[in-house]
Amino acid sequence: MKRFRAAIEALSAYTPGEQPALGTRVIKLNTNENPYPPSPNVIEALRKIGGEELRRYPHPFAEEFRQSASEILRVEPSWILVGNGSDDLLTMLMRAVAGPGRTVAYPVPTYVLYRTLAAIQEAPVVEVPFDERYELPVSALADADPALTLVANPNSPSGTCASTDRLTDLAVRLKGILVIDEAYVEFADANALELVRKFDNVVVLRTLSKSHSLAGLRLGFGIANPALIHELTKVKDSYNVDAVAAHVGAWAVRDTAHTLANVSRIRESRTKLTNQLTSLGFRVWPSQANFVLVRPSEGNARDLYEALKQRGILVRYFNEIGLKDKLRISIGTDEENTVLMNTLKELVI
Amino acid sequence: MKRFRAAIEALSAYTPGEQPALGTRVIKLNTNENPYPPSPNVIEALRKIGGEELRRYPHPFAEEFRQSASEILRVEPSWILVGNGSDDLLTMLMRAVAGPGRTVAYPVPTYVLYRTLAAIQEAPVVEVPFDERYELPVSALADADPALTLVANPNSPSGTCASTDRLTDLAVRLKGILVIDEAYVEFADANALELVRKFDNVVVLRTLSKSHSLAGLRLGFGIANPALIHELTKVKDSYNVDAVAAHVGAWAVRDTAHTLANVSRIRESRTKLTNQLTSLGFRVWPSQANFVLVRPSEGNARDLYEALKQRGILVRYFNEIGLKDKLRISIGTDEENTVLMNTLKELVI
Repeated sequence: MKRFRAAIEALSAYTPGEQPALGTRVIKLNTNENPYPPSPNVIEALRKIGGEELRRYPHPFAEEFRQSASEILRVEPSWILVGNGSDDLLTMLMRAVAGPGRTVAYPVPTYVLYRTLAAIQEAPVVEVPFDERYELPVSALADADPALTLVANPNSPSGTCASTDRLTDLAVRLKGILVIDEAYVEFADANALELVRKFDNVVVLRTLSKSHSLAGLRLGFGIANPALIHELTKVKDSYNVDAVAAHVGAWAVRDTAHTLANVSRIRESRTKLTNQLTSLGFRVWPSQANFVLVRPSEGNARDLYEALKQRGILVRYFNEIGLKDKLRISIGTDEENTVLMNTLKELVI
Repeated sequence: MKRFRAAIEALSAYTPGEQPALGTRVIKLNTNENPYPPSPNVIEALRKIGGEELRRYPHPFAEEFRQSASEILRVEPSWILVGNGSDDLLTMLMRAVAGPGRTVAYPVPTYVLYRTLAAIQEAPVVEVPFDERYELPVSALADADPALTLVANPNSPSGTCASTDRLTDLAVRLKGILVIDEAYVEFADANALELVRKFDNVVVLRTLSKSHSLAGLRLGFGIANPALIHELTKVKDSYNVDAVAAHVGAWAVRDTAHTLANVSRIRESRTKLTNQLTSLGFRVWPSQANFVLVRPSEGNARDLYEALKQRGILVRYFNEIGLKDKLRISIGTDEENTVLMNTLKELVI
């Protein structure tokens, strides 16, 4: 007998985006972090945590955070399940739903973790390629009759968004569970939260990593009807969200003014950067997220990624079908974006 | 097709010990938290965390913590894998190793999460009952030829310990992986860390929840040879340990003087409480952990649990085979233990 399951031995570990050490002088536009700091209330809340909160086990459902999220989103607390980042929710969904004979479907290219998690579960996978306009392939997904369908919306790495009408169309046609992964939705014009009320098979995922500048805190959550939440809870780690994240995260979601201000700045920068990149000959897909997917007009995307890296600018290159000629660039501060554009002008002209 | 996997629908969710709200006037001896506060260095480290650490993704392997743990334990960093609590490591081990046709074995009664995690994986389970002295049933475990064997050592809820010789005996006889779950080992006379060097199929698990008074922080880790760690990494969440836990945890493990002082106090209280309970007619199993398993001389353990609860003292009652006549009592502060003993004297005499 082998030491590990065959599915695990066959797997490559997920490679997160490069993370240079704190303090390294690099312009980091490769992992879609928010370029602006979190709410000052977050830092203040962190300062107030004492030994007693650390000594005791945290609330299993991060009640303080859940209450706050519930008020902001106008969803009952029982409709919310917290996770150690939204990756934790994806893991719960996969473990609860996917397996041999229980297909997982999603459009590609998308978040590569979906593939890894499905492989761990030994679930059959149906990957439906997006067309060049990144229209959601509703029929092809529904025809696969999957147990679990995942749609990152806005999608990564394309930044494109399916309308709520198209998502509704998909939800109607699916018998299995539909996950709408809204990690980037605060940067978009619309969200699909209403679908969790209309369909008992829909889960919406959110995270504080991008819109709330808290990637380091690991706090995400799922929203769905309580019957669905109940089943996911069975595969949840008992204390998956720590006391610090539950407390600090509550303050973060309540500071909606701070979040909105940062989101507005990033959306403005996105428009500006899109125009500048287009002027420079890049194809830029219309983004609803805090990054843009671009295709250089000539030359090799990988070479451009390397050339930028040599000049201290990290962007993301995916060695994947449909992406080998493209780069994903996170929206930085205005200063960072200016350095990026000046460097690109030197490199591509 | 059902919405969820049949194994999930059949499952009951794990019930964590009762957690009264912070500030509730209750003597809480039910979840084996350390009664003393964490190191002052921990609080100071927490105060120094800024927005930049929160904004950015954390290091995927919590490098700062791993380096510190490596120095304290004299184990290379590549032999250490961090988790969101040691429960996270248990989950990784189960997902990487257990499954249909890949048996999980452990002595019972023990940590009930083992059973839940095996059920999620649809792995056959061999539960070998401890005798009344809680001797590790080496032969019966080895004869099951399991893919994954778990030994909580010290065991919960018994507090008893198997010697390193007996664990060695088990490691030699197992072809599959042996997990020695040392969540409580800092309160014991010896640990089995040396076995990870001697056997390439042994993983030792540790946590900061008990000995370091950091149950609220969620930080655990596994120690094993790098080849084994590599496979577990494949099922690890990319960023399973947050930036706060990685930083604060590093300061916690480095303050060995603080940990030792608290551990000594708890061991002394354990001796005292054991003697007092024995005098009162309880059978008390010899504990190497920060709790004692006791059997009241007469009357019903469940009634005693309820009577204590009514008087503001929470202990743990497990409605499980082999435990229905027993209670597990965490070691509290001297004051808490005195209140417990005075209350018990009223109740049982």
